[in-house]
Amino acid sequence: MKNQKQLSILLIIFLLVFSTGCKENVESKNVESNSSEVQELVDPLPSWNESQSKSAIISYVEDVTNTTSTNFIPITDRIATFDNDGNLLAEQPAYFQLFFAIDRVKVLAANHPEWKDKQPYKAVLENDMKTLMQSGMKGICEIVMASHAGITTDDFDSIVKDWVKNTKHPTKNVGYDELVYQPMLELLQYLRANDFKTYIVSAGGVDFMRAFVTEVYGIPKEQIIGSRIKTEYDYNDGNPVIRRLPELDFIDDKEGKPLNIQKIIGKKPVFASGNSDGDLQMMQWADSNAYKSFQLYVHHTDGEREWAYDRDSHIGRFDKGLDEAMEKSWTVIDMKNDWKVIFPFELE
Amino acid sequence: MKNQKQLSILLIIFLLVFSTGCKENVESKNVESNSSEVQELVDPLPSWNESQSKSAIISYVEDVTNTTSTNFIPITDRIATFDNDGNLLAEQPAYFQLFFAIDRVKVLAANHPEWKDKQPYKAVLENDMKTLMQSGMKGICEIVMASHAGITTDDFDSIVKDWVKNTKHPTKNVGYDELVYQPMLELLQYLRANDFKTYIVSAGGVDFMRAFVTEVYGIPKEQIIGSRIKTEYDYNDGNPVIRRLPELDFIDDKEGKPLNIQKIIGKKPVFASGNSDGDLQMMQWADSNAYKSFQLYVHHTDGEREWAYDRDSHIGRFDKGLDEAMEKSWTVIDMKNDWKVIFPFELE
Repeated sequence: MKNQKQLSILLIIFLLVFSTGCKENVESKNVESNSSEVQELVDPLPSWNESQSKSAIISYVEDVTNTTSTNFIPITDRIATFDNDGNLLAEQPAYFQLFFAIDRVKVLAANHPEWKDKQPYKAVLENDMKTLMQSGMKGICEIVMASHAGITTDDFDSIVKDWVKNTKHPTKNVGYDELVYQPMLELLQYLRANDFKTYIVSAGGVDFMRAFVTEVYGIPKEQIIGSRIKTEYDYNDGNPVIRRLPELDFIDDKEGKPLNIQKIIGKKPVFASGNSDGDLQMMQWADSNAYKSFQLYVHHTDGEREWAYDRDSHIGRFDKGLDEAMEKSWTVIDMKNDWKVIFPFELE
Repeated sequence: MKNQKQLSILLIIFLLVFSTGCKENVESKNVESNSSEVQELVDPLPSWNESQSKSAIISYVEDVTNTTSTNFIPITDRIATFDNDGNLLAEQPAYFQLFFAIDRVKVLAANHPEWKDKQPYKAVLENDMKTLMQSGMKGICEIVMASHAGITTDDFDSIVKDWVKNTKHPTKNVGYDELVYQPMLELLQYLRANDFKTYIVSAGGVDFMRAFVTEVYGIPKEQIIGSRIKTEYDYNDGNPVIRRLPELDFIDDKEGKPLNIQKIIGKKPVFASGNSDGDLQMMQWADSNAYKSFQLYVHHTDGEREWAYDRDSHIGRFDKGLDEAMEKSWTVIDMKNDWKVIFPFELE
């Protein structure tokens, strides 16, 4: 199961992320105020308690966007990269993308009567998670490929969108898209208001994430980086399509994160945020930036409002990353104590 | 040699692309004018003759950016993709990236005395292009890998920048970076002024292009898509680097262009521009957009000011693409008749 993150992932959410953009709105109404006056008046991170984490983030942003600071970073180099699962939204009791895969296999089973007697499909159809997990990487991979490949990119996009719209989380009983972290939505918006370009860099499937991320996080498709399966171009008699093939192309996890950041962005991040050991190489990569950089780890400490897990978790294991964060004095968010609310529905 | 484009590529240029931004400057001085008045007053494409090509481009842009038009395209979907070699800058008598590879092998030869007697290095060191070309894909590939791999991404970036600064084109005797097409710089700027996001999508090496493209075209590194070699992440005792490996990772040519556009951008272009059969699949992909799209081919018809070549050329072959452009009434630029000047130095 150690590679489970490579195969699964996240889900996302239809919240008006722009409704959190208080600072931006105020600025546009106060064009004659200077930005420091506005910053004093409006809290850019209202769902954060007045903690060390919050003040460290704000100090950093104010420093590197100050043209008179020796740490000033030109806008073109303000690249901020965020892991997705467990960092911007929940990832328990399993990556949401795995739930999608399971639900999709159930839909497709109508055309595959042989699946009733064939593992790992049989386990999925019988909701036998234990047997499914015992099928290991090979079994999970088969489920993911059966549910994610064999169709065009356009069809896949529609299928994922429909699934999100019509499905609820198995234990929280709300839409998967309601399990996004409100404080992180505010952070994304705060960074963008300060001319950072915000990216998702996740082990999740890139096209799975793209089916929602724009609306949920306010991040356009071209700023979403993830794992991929192979694809092929088909001219299709003048109606070209791209078909998804049942073969892995790139795993955007661990070393894959800095490698993909270089391949796709071509710039080293100045701000990196994650929650597990799978994000550690991205953190190190940002930490080596010649510009002043910021590393932000989310620590899942709230077993009541969310889930509490770290060093021993089979999902989002946070062990080496936690050690290195402490050693290097990176900022670690204590979810229980640092966040006033976790999910947007708590605001109501 | 048919795959030569896969291994070579372009070079780029230190011109003040923003100096062509007449329209933008005027707009900022006339904030009370509405944009249609300004458009009548200022020619956004001053280096273009009043041709069919020019009017087709302007009509398209005015239509799809007009909120009252049925063809209106939201800003987030205004993706414009441009091939590089032969489309934004010259590619004769060979892709500029091949000249870089040859020059680099000559520099590295000091540490490789054995190359004096070993092909294809011997041919390179003796300026024996005929023998080098006879070494075929295998030989060219060896030269490209020897010159492009084995170093970190940061070092490669510096080496390319130095080369461009200190090297002249073999026959035109100007910097490689002076052989960019002035009318295309104006087109890039015109599209950006109308909120199109301009991308390079080239068979050229992505990191080779990134070493210059920002300054030359005003296109940031993250909007440059190209061919790649494999890379590896090395923690390097706390000073992480990414090393370039002597193995191809992805060829961004032909079918590779729409595939890479989907992988990296995740949106279908509405405007696609190229000059060879290697761009045809990108053109078809854009042409299948549900939004009104524009396909622009550059036809090399000016043997005096530039080079004249098309169906039989070993570089930038334009044969199937030319047929399909005529069949589908795509816009084909006749360089000789459509462009007042080709290179920026002709403006002086």
